[in-house]
Amino acid sequence: MKPIDFWFSIGSTYSYLTVMRLPEYAAQQGVVFNWRPFDVRAIMTEQNNIPFAHKPAKSSHMWRDIERRAGKYGLPIKVPVPYPLEELVFANQVALLGMREGWGQAYTVEAYRMWFTEGKKAGTEANVLECLKRIGQDSVRVIKLAHSPEIASALVDETTHCRELGIFGAPSFVVDGEVFWGNDRLEDAVSWRKNGCVR
Amino acid sequence: MKPIDFWFSIGSTYSYLTVMRLPEYAAQQGVVFNWRPFDVRAIMTEQNNIPFAHKPAKSSHMWRDIERRAGKYGLPIKVPVPYPLEELVFANQVALLGMREGWGQAYTVEAYRMWFTEGKKAGTEANVLECLKRIGQDSVRVIKLAHSPEIASALVDETTHCRELGIFGAPSFVVDGEVFWGNDRLEDAVSWRKNGCVR
Repeated sequence: MKPIDFWFSIGSTYSYLTVMRLPEYAAQQGVVFNWRPFDVRAIMTEQNNIPFAHKPAKSSHMWRDIERRAGKYGLPIKVPVPYPLEELVFANQVALLGMREGWGQAYTVEAYRMWFTEGKKAGTEANVLECLKRIGQDSVRVIKLAHSPEIASALVDETTHCRELGIFGAPSFVVDGEVFWGNDRLEDAVSWRKNGCVR
Repeated sequence: MKPIDFWFSIGSTYSYLTVMRLPEYAAQQGVVFNWRPFDVRAIMTEQNNIPFAHKPAKSSHMWRDIERRAGKYGLPIKVPVPYPLEELVFANQVALLGMREGWGQAYTVEAYRMWFTEGKKAGTEANVLECLKRIGQDSVRVIKLAHSPEIASALVDETTHCRELGIFGAPSFVVDGEVFWGNDRLEDAVSWRKNGCVR
């Protein structure tokens, strides 16, 4: 079975639910997910897609909804968390480097855990340092490399690719050109891969 | 078991999925839903919550997503449908009158069926006439009454009530003060009513 592209951006709130449950869910379903970080803020800004800023009723529901759903999935959570992330781009540059080197999932899961259970914003130099230490990576080496023009440009390229696919938010799953947006569509994406339709 | 308030607005696209599946789902679950029309456009406009206008990637996903989910629920559909509705307010005034008189669900289901399978916009005088005829109501009497200041003001009052509850979009389900937004949260609302948590 071909993998499903899992497009995510550390900085998206609902992605907490997906990132934390995906490793186990993927194994249960026997489906491989290709974790691909991108810069969701660049895309949303250019599309004038600003879902929460200056929308108190919608924001308030978002935190409560994520909290209720974390309960459903058995995930620890302490909301609201500090939001938005100033260092979204750097947080995802580290993730992209990690995906190349094989520790990207561990980093992403730990970055979300720190953000959603300890209130530590992903992407700040101090928090990236701590996150990398927790997963056993050499922080100094990684941080230097993640700042390199090559990694910065690779994240821009992935974001361009997202735009061409019709992605407008995170998380998104892409199966044979079908875009499924949101944590709520993880099951639909798997159904599409297995059955060619949503069941 | 106390009923669940089902706040809806004819004019909301995703509400097609809810309106069409709710009668059967409610019976299966043994839960009563109190169907309450409101003016979602007034609330979204004042909250600057404009999810689809001038957002081609997001709009395109919305139609495709509704189509895929209609397949999951076994509902006929022909998308995209004419959107938005100019006569959203009148469409919901008729619904409100119908809820008082006992034919509101039949009208709402038929209005959505006409809109999503025949491309006939809800709320225009011609389509309301036809819709009322199909469900066996006296169109002339109903249309006159639905235009009355009393019904117009009742819809405004219901919309004010929504605002106070923290509702920002449609459909929304309210259970003991908990707001659940979207067709995707129907199951969560039922779980909350039955278990006091989302399972």
